[in-house]
Amino acid sequence: MQKAIYSQRRQNLVREFRAKGVDCLLVSALPNIRYLAGFTGSNALLLLWEGGAVLFTDRRYEIQAGEECDCAVQVARGPLIPEALKLVRRRKLRRVGFESHRVLFDSYTELCEGLRPGSRAVAVRGWVEGYRMVKAPEEIAAIRASVELNSRALERALKRLKPEMSEADLAAEIDYQMRRLGAEGTAFDTIVASGARAALPHAQPTSARIEAAQVLLIDMGAKLGGYLSDMTRTLFVGGAGKRLLHYYAAVREAQMAGVEAVREGIAAEKVDAACRITLARWRLDRFFVHSTGHGLGLEIHEAPRLGKKVKTQLKAGMVITIEPGVYIEDFCGIRIEDTVLVTKNGCEVLTPTSKEPVVV
Amino acid sequence: MQKAIYSQRRQNLVREFRAKGVDCLLVSALPNIRYLAGFTGSNALLLLWEGGAVLFTDRRYEIQAGEECDCAVQVARGPLIPEALKLVRRRKLRRVGFESHRVLFDSYTELCEGLRPGSRAVAVRGWVEGYRMVKAPEEIAAIRASVELNSRALERALKRLKPEMSEADLAAEIDYQMRRLGAEGTAFDTIVASGARAALPHAQPTSARIEAAQVLLIDMGAKLGGYLSDMTRTLFVGGAGKRLLHYYAAVREAQMAGVEAVREGIAAEKVDAACRITLARWRLDRFFVHSTGHGLGLEIHEAPRLGKKVKTQLKAGMVITIEPGVYIEDFCGIRIEDTVLVTKNGCEVLTPTSKEPVVV
Repeated sequence: MQKAIYSQRRQNLVREFRAKGVDCLLVSALPNIRYLAGFTGSNALLLLWEGGAVLFTDRRYEIQAGEECDCAVQVARGPLIPEALKLVRRRKLRRVGFESHRVLFDSYTELCEGLRPGSRAVAVRGWVEGYRMVKAPEEIAAIRASVELNSRALERALKRLKPEMSEADLAAEIDYQMRRLGAEGTAFDTIVASGARAALPHAQPTSARIEAAQVLLIDMGAKLGGYLSDMTRTLFVGGAGKRLLHYYAAVREAQMAGVEAVREGIAAEKVDAACRITLARWRLDRFFVHSTGHGLGLEIHEAPRLGKKVKTQLKAGMVITIEPGVYIEDFCGIRIEDTVLVTKNGCEVLTPTSKEPVVV
Repeated sequence: MQKAIYSQRRQNLVREFRAKGVDCLLVSALPNIRYLAGFTGSNALLLLWEGGAVLFTDRRYEIQAGEECDCAVQVARGPLIPEALKLVRRRKLRRVGFESHRVLFDSYTELCEGLRPGSRAVAVRGWVEGYRMVKAPEEIAAIRASVELNSRALERALKRLKPEMSEADLAAEIDYQMRRLGAEGTAFDTIVASGARAALPHAQPTSARIEAAQVLLIDMGAKLGGYLSDMTRTLFVGGAGKRLLHYYAAVREAQMAGVEAVREGIAAEKVDAACRITLARWRLDRFFVHSTGHGLGLEIHEAPRLGKKVKTQLKAGMVITIEPGVYIEDFCGIRIEDTVLVTKNGCEVLTPTSKEPVVV
């Protein structure tokens, strides 16, 4: 990112201070701090007020913060909250916004204890995340690169698939290929689940051999330039019986119905419903045990969630996943997931990997 | 772990309920939940009361929780806190312990709003973590296996080091070797920092080539059976000048002084001081910008911290890191880190990798 983007983002926030009833904002969530100041380390607080911004971190990150941030950096010798509060008191900032959905209860207590009489902590929830939902062109480019790398990594890993490989071996190969292609790492722990284990939506790869006549569910994402990708494909090993192909066709139809439903202005719950209604026609809706998708960007699960009763309207520039699945205990699990960009009149499926049933 | 170990651990906690002033405990931190119930998924709450334990999770983990847990499992259709509170109200549990250092402020609010009049939330801090500090023999065995795998992975990766490799390439190779050896993944993002970049204690690997006549700092840990390892080695590429060898000798002496100081009964700050005093003799103490070490186990940073003013007395069975370093801006960074097991009369260095200066 160009450094100018950070000060622009901070200015947008500060402009809302009056409406939100705060004199300053103490940003705690690291992805929010990265979004607002460019810092990528693991320990920081960011204090914003009208006309100023200071990033607090510890000595391990002294050099790095200086390189990455476009705002003032203050290196604390001890805990960061008391250090930030010294500045709050010095500047006589009275209404201190804090991220109540990101701050631990003990940190909240520490914050309150450090305020002057007459000052108070003001809970703000999802404020920065609200901005992060709609991605800037630079962010879309970064996600696109992450998505493409992710698909290339799957292609390369599958070329190296051998009969004696375990789920864990294939997961290791996938992660290695991502890194060889330049990813900083994975967006989450790669899922490789074969046969009946694919019925566990969040299975961890085991030492079980990948065997013929079974499904092979792969859920993977890369991290590149800080931005994440997310894709699931379900493959058939050796060949596929009728029943498996039947389920696959159902999930594929549901996934495409979800993609079809996406456009600016639609409520998130409607996209979820599109998948569910399709699976209901196949009498498989009771096997779809999770939401249809989620936003992603600097974090793997961002707003909006695409699930029941979520009224959030999609906007052009949001990047979301569409990932219905069916899970049949002791038999199989099938999930198909793309990362898609919401546009004015529909969406662009960013994931280039085919959804045709593939036998490996 | 044998499943019997979990109910034993829960019983130990419940026996303290009266002294802690609670009727039940709502465990939120996932490593604490794993420690007390065996569950390895990413979304759960555990409610403990005299005579009972229920794990709450969502439908994605329904099958997995049944397989992993030795206690009752309840699958919630929505958020977990309201579900757990239904049980709290039904059982008329009035004083509800919650992990205030692990619970978000918003979750605390949700908890309070769901209590009957006359009931209240009681903050408990580090209670389960207190038990986790001293490891059981099964846990020590698991950490030992993780540490040994980690060292083997470094050995294998260094055999594949080639002149054209970047920091990121070597990091990818290290992570791949861990996985090939059976690790579930890394304990944290592997650090590979060469030359002046090693002066950033928490550097992320870059596309910079690993060049001759420089240091190569590698900080890596594996995750095996849920348990973590942590090791840092600083190598010399091509050869090493006098100044680098001087710094290396100082850090090595400091690291060994730290190891020498470890034994049951000593305060954590004394181990930290042993490293600092040694570096002061070399007039390098001002370049040692972090603490000497930390406990590890299911998490990479557990109690106790080995730093200034930490009075916690070490106990046999604790597993800690000893990792002093010096960081010279624009020139180099050197850190040496072992994982050690505290014993009655001293400690056992679990890390088998040599600390002799090595040229690669």
